[in-house]
Amino acid sequence: MSSDIKEFNDYRSKMNDKLLGDNNKIIKRIFNLDTNAFSAGALDVKTKELLGLIASTVLRCDDCVKYHLESCYNEGVTKEEVMETLSIGTLVGGTIVIPHLRRAYEYWEALENQND
Amino acid sequence: MSSDIKEFNDYRSKMNDKLLGDNNKIIKRIFNLDTNAFSAGALDVKTKELLGLIASTVLRCDDCVKYHLESCYNEGVTKEEVMETLSIGTLVGGTIVIPHLRRAYEYWEALENQND
Amino acid sequence: MSSDIKEFNDYRSKMNDKLLGDNNKIIKRIFNLDTNAFSAGALDVKTKELLGLIASTVLRCDDCVKYHLESCYNEGVTKEEVMETLSIGTLVGGTIVIPHLRRAYEYWEALENQND
Amino acid sequence: MSSDIKEFNDYRSKMNDKLLGDNNKIIKRIFNLDTNAFSAGALDVKTKELLGLIASTVLRCDDCVKYHLESCYNEGVTKEEVMETLSIGTLVGGTIVIPHLRRAYEYWEALENQND
Amino acid sequence: MSSDIKEFNDYRSKMNDKLLGDNNKIIKRIFNLDTNAFSAGALDVKTKELLGLIASTVLRCDDCVKYHLESCYNEGVTKEEVMETLSIGTLVGGTIVIPHLRRAYEYWEALENQND
Amino acid sequence: MSSDIKEFNDYRSKMNDKLLGDNNKIIKRIFNLDTNAFSAGALDVKTKELLGLIASTVLRCDDCVKYHLESCYNEGVTKEEVMETLSIGTLVGGTIVIPHLRRAYEYWEALENQND
Repeated sequence: MSSDIKEFNDYRSKMNDKLLGDNNKIIKRIFNLDTNAFSAGALDVKTKELLGLIASTVLRCDDCVKYHLESCYNEGVTKEEVMETLSIGTLVGGTIVIPHLRRAYEYWEALENQND
Repeated sequence: MSSDIKEFNDYRSKMNDKLLGDNNKIIKRIFNLDTNAFSAGALDVKTKELLGLIASTVLRCDDCVKYHLESCYNEGVTKEEVMETLSIGTLVGGTIVIPHLRRAYEYWEALENQND
Repeated sequence: MSSDIKEFNDYRSKMNDKLLGDNNKIIKRIFNLDTNAFSAGALDVKTKELLGLIASTVLRCDDCVKYHLESCYNEGVTKEEVMETLSIGTLVGGTIVIPHLRRAYEYWEALENQND
Repeated sequence: MSSDIKEFNDYRSKMNDKLLGDNNKIIKRIFNLDTNAFSAGALDVKTKELLGLIASTVLRCDDCVKYHLESCYNEGVTKEEVMETLSIGTLVGGTIVIPHLRRAYEYWEALENQND
Repeated sequence: MSSDIKEFNDYRSKMNDKLLGDNNKIIKRIFNLDTNAFSAGALDVKTKELLGLIASTVLRCDDCVKYHLESCYNEGVTKEEVMETLSIGTLVGGTIVIPHLRRAYEYWEALENQND
Repeated sequence: MSSDIKEFNDYRSKMNDKLLGDNNKIIKRIFNLDTNAFSAGALDVKTKELLGLIASTVLRCDDCVKYHLESCYNEGVTKEEVMETLSIGTLVGGTIVIPHLRRAYEYWEALENQND
């Protein structure tokens, strides 16, 4: 695994453990809901991950974009599908999204190259 | 067609004509790009409309939500699929999205009942 | 009750019933979480309502502002406390908040005058 | 004056009087700062009004857009200059801005036609 | 003091001095207003800091969150109170807030451990 | 050129090349539109760059702010004009903009000192 991907996931994992180890019910339930919402239902997992990706893109959250890019990658979403999703996100969200698009593209490359 | 749907579309149509009749190239091209971006590509039209719907939902734009709800309806998206998309939007965008969720639900009902 | 307050609450209530009557688990749980999050805990209900009010203000959601203004009113929050909360919201969120501040002020007046 | 323009200004004026008549120093000072910030300085009033217009556009605040359109109109800004400003706002802020662009265009027409 | 806290405060302090040393009246007054708004009034300082914290959280500004966490810590706000505030912020602002919640939690730990 | 400015521009340039080298028409056209929108028209380039600067400021995009600061610098915009633009952005967008104001000020200093 590339060091960027590993660093992102290690921090995310360490802090999620702390947050969930804490005694706050609301936060625990929101995390739980998050797992549920992206499970297969009327829509399949792949479509839901693309929904998560574009929502993260237009709200300009780099960490959320990375997280959904990784799930998309693991679900077998193609680069063309990811790029179409990101391009709609950039159109809807505006050129203000472009810096996040650059970082998203870089992370997708890291995902594709992680087993080199 | 229900009066809400007709009123929304008439106003949208009238103002788009004025905007496009005007001499501003940037606006014309953005409108043109919008048509292109939601055409079938690596992703099909239905998936793209769901992407447009959730992006509009988390950015809390009622008119954009209505527009994509109508396109979804015309593409044969089911109510369950729309509701899953809106529910992910509410989770990602927070409870601040709920007032828009109410209006989205109402508009979807109007779409379903328009031929009654 | 003033007609504005009644109209707001009737619509909210009618649409919430429809949303909750629907079969979407994520939405039901988010509504449920919302009730839980604003119940007394380490912080009392009044403080939590002020937190809900300022969050709604800086995110510029008129319906959410109205909802929390009404809860504040029912909890016995004074006008001075509400105005301080709204003023911090306007400072943090910027002058873009001012149109929402006008509508918030108007709704608070309606709440104060509802039993006249 | 067209009824839309009059209604907007009357409500704005009435509520501003109430807000400023109230005893909240922070709100009074923010209003005062607002007047100062848009006065001539290193930049002239016209440029500042265009800055206010695009800021309001990308933050998608209809009332703020109307307010700055009216000031632009009174400063003698041309329709072409307003449209270029709005088009940059739509590009930077994304297609989510388009519904606000429609309403801005409509309000500008009302301003141009108010003395007919 | 932990190095993260020191680095954050040193940069903030250095740049604030430069901004205030500059000849811009609007910026000076906004900084001044900020000090005033969070002073005791109808609401006490602790409540106001929690308002500042949740506003910063839902607007997803890491530096603002850190600043208010530190003020909360100095005012004797407990971890439970901070976590309830952050949990309401995450519910209202959505899961898009979670990456900021992780960083907020980490900064609070640094504040608690700074005298170890 | 200072190392901060060089690093920012090198990364931007490298990733833009990758994005444009890719086969996504929507992204290519958005980049193209961006170049067009900031060219001289009814408004001159300098005014348009100030519009781009304030839009980036209120939307709180550090990279976009840096980009427009650099274009402003190259167009001969004075520090006073930049500071007035940023101050209006901070007033309209709220104190939540302040951390971005600090970084903007620092980048402007780097631009002024790059030939030392």
